[in-house]
Amino acid sequence: MFRHVVLLRWTEDATEEQKAEVARRLGELPRLIPELKSYRFGPDAGINPGNFSFGLVADFDSPEDYLVYRDHPAHRAVIDECIAPILAERAAVQFALPPDGDPAARPNS
Amino acid sequence: MFRHVVLLRWTEDATEEQKAEVARRLGELPRLIPELKSYRFGPDAGINPGNFSFGLVADFDSPEDYLVYRDHPAHRAVIDECIAPILAERAAVQFALPPDGDPAARPNS
Repeated sequence: MFRHVVLLRWTEDATEEQKAEVARRLGELPRLIPELKSYRFGPDAGINPGNFSFGLVADFDSPEDYLVYRDHPAHRAVIDECIAPILAERAAVQFALPPDGDPAARPNS
Repeated sequence: MFRHVVLLRWTEDATEEQKAEVARRLGELPRLIPELKSYRFGPDAGINPGNFSFGLVADFDSPEDYLVYRDHPAHRAVIDECIAPILAERAAVQFALPPDGDPAARPNS
C-alpha cells in the first residue's frame, strides 16, 4: 500500500461555507476515483495551537494509483475551485506502507 | 476514532543515520504506548518536489488517548533526542474519524 498525506492551512478570511464545500467535494471523489482504497479527512480538532487547518490521508495499492488520483480531473477541479481560493499553506508527504502490517495492530509485538 | 497526522521536514545537514534513528525509535512506541491503535510512518517517496521529508499517522480511540501519546515520556524522549536536532519544519493536524467508516471502503457508495 501507498499513503498520501496532505495538511492544509486556510486563509484567515476563509468562510465556514468555503471550508464545508471543500469537505463536501472531496467526499465525492471515492466514487469517481476507484484507485482510492481509503480516504479520510477532516478539520483540525483545535487541541494544539499552531496546527494546520485540515488533514487528509489517502491510501492506494501503488504509487501509480496515487498518480491517477493526483492528476484526476475531478480531483484537480476540487483543488482549483474550492481549495486554491482559501489556501494559505500546504504540506504533503507520500510514503510506502510496509507490507508487514501495522506495528500497533500486532499483538505481543 | 481519532487521528493524529504530522509531517516533518529535516534540516539539510541531517544524516541518513539520524533519519534512520528517528524511524527506529518511533517503531518502539507501539509496545510502550498501548493507546496507539495504528501507527504508520515513513520517509517521503520523492515523487513530488517541495514535499516534507517524513510523514506519520497515528490512530487512537479518543482525543484523550491521543493526549496520553502526545505527552508520554517515551514519545517526548524520541522528539527531544532524535527529532528536534534535525527538525527544520513541522506541520500537524488532529481530526476525528467519522464513525460511519471509510467512504472509499464502502461498496456502491
